[in-house]
Amino acid sequence: MYKTHVLFSLFAALFLVACSSDTTPTGAGNTGVDLSKTYNWKMVTTWPANFPIFQEGAEKFADDVKTMSSGRLDIQVYAGGELVPALQVFDAVSSGVVEMGHGSPYYWAGVVPAAQFFSSVPFGMSAKGMNAWLYNGGGLELWREIYQPYNLIAFPMGNTGVQMGGWFNKPINSVEDLKGLRMRIPGLGGKVLKKAGGNPVLMAGGEIYTALDRGTIDATEWVAPFHDMRLGLNRAANYYYYPGWHEPGTVFELMINSNKWQTLTPELQKIVETAAAATSEWIYAQMEFNNQQALAELRTKQNVQIQPFPDEVLLELQRMTQQTLDEEAAANPEFKKVYDAYETFRQSYGLWETISEEAFQDSLRLQ
Amino acid sequence: MYKTHVLFSLFAALFLVACSSDTTPTGAGNTGVDLSKTYNWKMVTTWPANFPIFQEGAEKFADDVKTMSSGRLDIQVYAGGELVPALQVFDAVSSGVVEMGHGSPYYWAGVVPAAQFFSSVPFGMSAKGMNAWLYNGGGLELWREIYQPYNLIAFPMGNTGVQMGGWFNKPINSVEDLKGLRMRIPGLGGKVLKKAGGNPVLMAGGEIYTALDRGTIDATEWVAPFHDMRLGLNRAANYYYYPGWHEPGTVFELMINSNKWQTLTPELQKIVETAAAATSEWIYAQMEFNNQQALAELRTKQNVQIQPFPDEVLLELQRMTQQTLDEEAAANPEFKKVYDAYETFRQSYGLWETISEEAFQDSLRLQ
Repeated sequence: MYKTHVLFSLFAALFLVACSSDTTPTGAGNTGVDLSKTYNWKMVTTWPANFPIFQEGAEKFADDVKTMSSGRLDIQVYAGGELVPALQVFDAVSSGVVEMGHGSPYYWAGVVPAAQFFSSVPFGMSAKGMNAWLYNGGGLELWREIYQPYNLIAFPMGNTGVQMGGWFNKPINSVEDLKGLRMRIPGLGGKVLKKAGGNPVLMAGGEIYTALDRGTIDATEWVAPFHDMRLGLNRAANYYYYPGWHEPGTVFELMINSNKWQTLTPELQKIVETAAAATSEWIYAQMEFNNQQALAELRTKQNVQIQPFPDEVLLELQRMTQQTLDEEAAANPEFKKVYDAYETFRQSYGLWETISEEAFQDSLRLQ
Repeated sequence: MYKTHVLFSLFAALFLVACSSDTTPTGAGNTGVDLSKTYNWKMVTTWPANFPIFQEGAEKFADDVKTMSSGRLDIQVYAGGELVPALQVFDAVSSGVVEMGHGSPYYWAGVVPAAQFFSSVPFGMSAKGMNAWLYNGGGLELWREIYQPYNLIAFPMGNTGVQMGGWFNKPINSVEDLKGLRMRIPGLGGKVLKKAGGNPVLMAGGEIYTALDRGTIDATEWVAPFHDMRLGLNRAANYYYYPGWHEPGTVFELMINSNKWQTLTPELQKIVETAAAATSEWIYAQMEFNNQQALAELRTKQNVQIQPFPDEVLLELQRMTQQTLDEEAAANPEFKKVYDAYETFRQSYGLWETISEEAFQDSLRLQ
């Protein structure tokens, strides 16, 4: 089944690429820029078709670009598997099979381990710190530097906000309760859980509900209330739902093949860059709105207990995070370089956060 | 001096408006949209010339729009007082003297009291909650509804982040210390301080440093470390610097004269809307970056103590905020309508914030 799927995708990719075209009729606008050349581009995403907010964000971006350019840059958006499999988005854009991709940098950790810092790392920065670092603190320059060998240029295009720690079929009262815990949790979060004695399991989104319901796994993370409830995670027996620690503000990326990017006129480049920044804000606002709405519904459910992890568990996960990041840094100089830059900014930014947003939120809790 | 200034500004406004023109050469692009019509527009702002981040944001917006439209929408940006005085921006755009303005809605509280909810209110929502409410929770629709009688359409275009509570020449150890306190603090914050026994003073930015240094005032708020240090507020004798409560995430606005807006082609409307959203993210990221950097410098100063207000002071300010908002709501049905909508969202959003961003930030404080 999987192989057929891949073959079909590759065939479809070749077929569609053959149909791709840039047309250049004669004539130029009165502004010195050629306003008649049109581009028919493709964007592949890592999201399932119709996936709320994520795939919608990619489609909104393409719509906005088309409108702003009066149709001169027309981007056809393909969900994961429609043109190339979700996890081949990086290769497809890098090689120029398609011009653009939308996903999150940590999907390419196997190729570019340092890319994980441009998504989210356990106990790392949340959305506002990530934006400050990426746009102003040198983060985006570093990101583009590590993507440059792959012929890719990246733009931030979305943030999930703080993701939840996940659904557990028993309460986590101590570090002991993590031992042997079979939990669906990918990436660095999974590595950290493993160090804490857990048993991280890889599993696609579509399989999670059944696995949790049948007890094949003891726990799972997904995103946050809105997406979690769409997956039905609140519908099974009795669950404990915990705040997040492993993905405090996952950044999404617009990636563009560098050669293709160079062919765009300056006004189309600015349209793409601006649409990506606007989509970034749109996705984050959508997440925050829909999660507060989903949580209001979730709070009416009798079978879900929402409660914090005990301090000793959070401290253990923080220690294991430190070990994990240090080990990765020791194994990969590029990872270390980005880690150092990230940490320097995170610590300075943390001092500002403490006396601004945190102090303010603390004052509200006095009521 | 002031009168001369106003007369000059009005004269300048009339002169420049007379020079304004929309040109429509013949010819159309190949996309069905007339790509040859050009618009020469003016944007007036409430910021001083060269004011970092705020005025820069307005200029960045204009540059982006010009680039994206290949010069077809060319917006000349004027700082406060250059064309019209800062506090006449609303009238100038409303009447069509100019097409666009950049400022913050609470400047028009005298005309539209409810507008203050679209800027920031004491103990209200910070940036991420405001964006979720404005873009998705009906906030922007409400904002446009109350601006509609003034022939204005609004777009969010910037956020300051959590502003600081200000600089005090003595520590605030109890509610008693607020009694008689002469503090430069405008708007709702000033009304709240007055209810708590303080003496709010109105004063332009340029006068603050001298007034504080000479003891004409005991305290002042301005923005946050970056702008406060630019004003020199850290340079005078010994100060106590407190976290913020009265402006937890002030939203900036792009306001456009509705008739002028209607004359734009759909692709130029989308360019304006998208550039505004991108500028919104740009301004907020700039604020967060520069404030963390300024704070790092401020922490090296021996003459500044950064410390939280005592709980009893924050609780008193919260009670006075509640009274202030309730009184304003009783006096103005439109204020009440927006207040009710704002509060409904704020409370639901607060529950989500508690288990997401706050729970996460709490976990970091365990270290």
